[in-house]
Amino acid sequence: MNIETRPVDHVIAAAREFLGDRLSTNATVREGHSRGEDTSTPVLPDAVAFPISTEEVSRLMALCHRHEVPVTAFGAGTSLEGHATPVRAGISLDLTRMDHILEVSQEDMDCLVEPGVTRHQLNDHLRDQGLFFPVDPGSHCTLGGMCATRASGTNAVRYGTVRENVMGLEVVLADGRVINTGSRTRKAANGYDLTRLMIGSEGTLGIITKIRLRLHGIPEATSAAVCQFATLEGAVESVIAVMQMGVPVARIELLDEVQMGACISYSKLEGLEALPTLFLEFHGTEAGVQEQAETVQEVTGGYGGRGFAWATDVETRNKLWKARHDAFWASVALRPNARGISTDVCVPISRLAEALLGAKEDIEASGMVAPIVGHVGDGNFHCLIVVEQDDPTALDRAWELDRKIVARGLAAGGTCSGEHGVGLGKREFLEVEHGAEALAVMRSIKKTLDPKGILNPGKIFLN
Amino acid sequence: MNIETRPVDHVIAAAREFLGDRLSTNATVREGHSRGEDTSTPVLPDAVAFPISTEEVSRLMALCHRHEVPVTAFGAGTSLEGHATPVRAGISLDLTRMDHILEVSQEDMDCLVEPGVTRHQLNDHLRDQGLFFPVDPGSHCTLGGMCATRASGTNAVRYGTVRENVMGLEVVLADGRVINTGSRTRKAANGYDLTRLMIGSEGTLGIITKIRLRLHGIPEATSAAVCQFATLEGAVESVIAVMQMGVPVARIELLDEVQMGACISYSKLEGLEALPTLFLEFHGTEAGVQEQAETVQEVTGGYGGRGFAWATDVETRNKLWKARHDAFWASVALRPNARGISTDVCVPISRLAEALLGAKEDIEASGMVAPIVGHVGDGNFHCLIVVEQDDPTALDRAWELDRKIVARGLAAGGTCSGEHGVGLGKREFLEVEHGAEALAVMRSIKKTLDPKGILNPGKIFLN
Repeated sequence: MNIETRPVDHVIAAAREFLGDRLSTNATVREGHSRGEDTSTPVLPDAVAFPISTEEVSRLMALCHRHEVPVTAFGAGTSLEGHATPVRAGISLDLTRMDHILEVSQEDMDCLVEPGVTRHQLNDHLRDQGLFFPVDPGSHCTLGGMCATRASGTNAVRYGTVRENVMGLEVVLADGRVINTGSRTRKAANGYDLTRLMIGSEGTLGIITKIRLRLHGIPEATSAAVCQFATLEGAVESVIAVMQMGVPVARIELLDEVQMGACISYSKLEGLEALPTLFLEFHGTEAGVQEQAETVQEVTGGYGGRGFAWATDVETRNKLWKARHDAFWASVALRPNARGISTDVCVPISRLAEALLGAKEDIEASGMVAPIVGHVGDGNFHCLIVVEQDDPTALDRAWELDRKIVARGLAAGGTCSGEHGVGLGKREFLEVEHGAEALAVMRSIKKTLDPKGILNPGKIFLN
Repeated sequence: MNIETRPVDHVIAAAREFLGDRLSTNATVREGHSRGEDTSTPVLPDAVAFPISTEEVSRLMALCHRHEVPVTAFGAGTSLEGHATPVRAGISLDLTRMDHILEVSQEDMDCLVEPGVTRHQLNDHLRDQGLFFPVDPGSHCTLGGMCATRASGTNAVRYGTVRENVMGLEVVLADGRVINTGSRTRKAANGYDLTRLMIGSEGTLGIITKIRLRLHGIPEATSAAVCQFATLEGAVESVIAVMQMGVPVARIELLDEVQMGACISYSKLEGLEALPTLFLEFHGTEAGVQEQAETVQEVTGGYGGRGFAWATDVETRNKLWKARHDAFWASVALRPNARGISTDVCVPISRLAEALLGAKEDIEASGMVAPIVGHVGDGNFHCLIVVEQDDPTALDRAWELDRKIVARGLAAGGTCSGEHGVGLGKREFLEVEHGAEALAVMRSIKKTLDPKGILNPGKIFLN
């Protein structure tokens, strides 16, 4: 019997002094922090910490740094790429109790929030003030997790991603030091952009403890539209044309016929067929929204789009976007006892048709069920590969299909991840995508900011 | 007599072998690379290199790295903060002969250019293709210089700064290694954001040798408008109201009564008075532009704005914006044999009135002439302090005034630099602005990427 005290035991004992029962070694709690919504192999952390202040995070990081204990940040657990899995155990740092909206400025259209605030919580809070935060990945994720993974979603085509909508951060470094990055101004040329360095660093460079977000005014008018196509090509060509005309669409989402079939039955959509379909949303003045819809109707008509129906009433819009956001679950529901793996290729828009149609061929050749849905205005699409858990070969076949689709995306000048991040699942592609030297620069920055390698080890980089 | 060969002599001898007469030690050439448009003390570089390829830049950097010789990048020499001054001599790396537009993609609305391409050159090239690059700092600067300083300008209020409009870079590192950053896609979540790390690093982390820029469609309709106010407060409050209403103005520029007086005489503007004035531009569809102008007219009217005149003809617009871009020279022309020092404070828009009116008080108290002009939609304004070169105390008094205005900006939650960069002139403010720990992180990144400190030494950081 090994009675030697492990480093993590020192951390647990010392952290209990200031976290009390907000440091848990309970098996169920650890189990709940063993991975996100992905299919990575679950790993139990040694303990789960629930800090409620920057100071607590800082003290905990200083302890873990001293004892060289791994720390994996945890938000809503909605990662699809293994970010939340504590592959080398240690501490799972759950930030969901840091969920206060600290400031909202109507005049400056910005706000300061803690990382555990969810985007739903924020938008509910903002509604009365005529403001909203546009980045919308669909899931009930935390804003800290969104920053860490450089999230985007359906509105990014108009409002940009987290990259464009975060003004500054408070970050606890690996050794417990606290820094503030960025500026409260709309722009600044005042030194290195540490904000953007932290955005998308997936918890490997620091722990985000405060976020200043840029907000937008709720548009005077909003309308949604649906348009169906006989062919996927027609739908994709329409998207390319709309983007090139510079129509400021707020959302332009593509669902292939398999995905539409799934959504029609899952979300009880009426009056729509299992055909390639675009879901659109327009934001602007009353006149502007109407003008945008008319332009898009004309464009889609030219590519065989039919049944262009647009709705300004909230109920119809909500039903449509709820169905879109439930696409992942609608897909998973296509087979009994299934899980989903989502690809996340993003390509230059000129290569979108090629990448999408190629992916469709790969899916057919694989014999798997994989509906396609995409933020196609940004060239980003997901193949939701349905993995039947009773089939022992399904997971391997799904990853093989994923790899093929990524390879096509990279060959088309794209990236392995438009918005889900690298995590565990996309590490193998980074060297192909960036080249060995750029990856070496990323590693050198990691080593500078986290010399002991305690922050979310095993993510982004292989080895 | 010291006959020892200096390290730079080794570099010059070895670089001659591949640069030939594109490595100059001519006194006039060195003099022309001793500073930018700023008032920093000129320093002669030991030699000026004019590479024409990434490979040449890489070989030169490897040499300078080996011999620990400083390298200061040089573009159009339009820096206002001393970026181009080779304070520790060595090599001035002039990138203006790398001025090729390598690719333009109409479908993807992006292009690949060398760093010596100027924004005028690029926009002339793009015009026939219905595209433009929106970032417009006014001066005839190179795109490499704009990236290095995180430039912005009049259109940033709508289109963002260089930060938002650069998709990726090719960068030669301090030791000559070449990396590619970013992605050709509109978004990506694929590792650390090295693009944004390089943007605004002012030549201290690497030499930018290729740039992939995001382009925009030339809008269907453009109109300009001018509106004059009895008081500066009225003009500023109008700007705040327009921004809060979310009107997507393409430009909203403020000139105070002193600046207007200078511009009226310098640019022969007719029908306008020396009063606080807004210059505006609207981009969109015909109907959209009209709607925007009407909304702004109504808002400005509510704050005492009068003579709201809007013009869709190109000639009137060009005259107006030429006058705006010449504001710096119009100010300098207010006194004989003068130079200009431009402050560059940027504040949250809710604090704009306070910062601007405070600056105005400081100017009056100083007894100096300093017209104010600003990209006020972004909270950024410049006091153009006119420095008479015959007055031996003028420069010191100008810097003292600059410091006061910056201090007010920082107290208002702003930054010392909205768009000109840190260079030499703003180094002293960075610790106040970011805090010692964040500055230490910046230094550690500098040390990691440039361990010998050869890239633009003396800039951004004090000491």
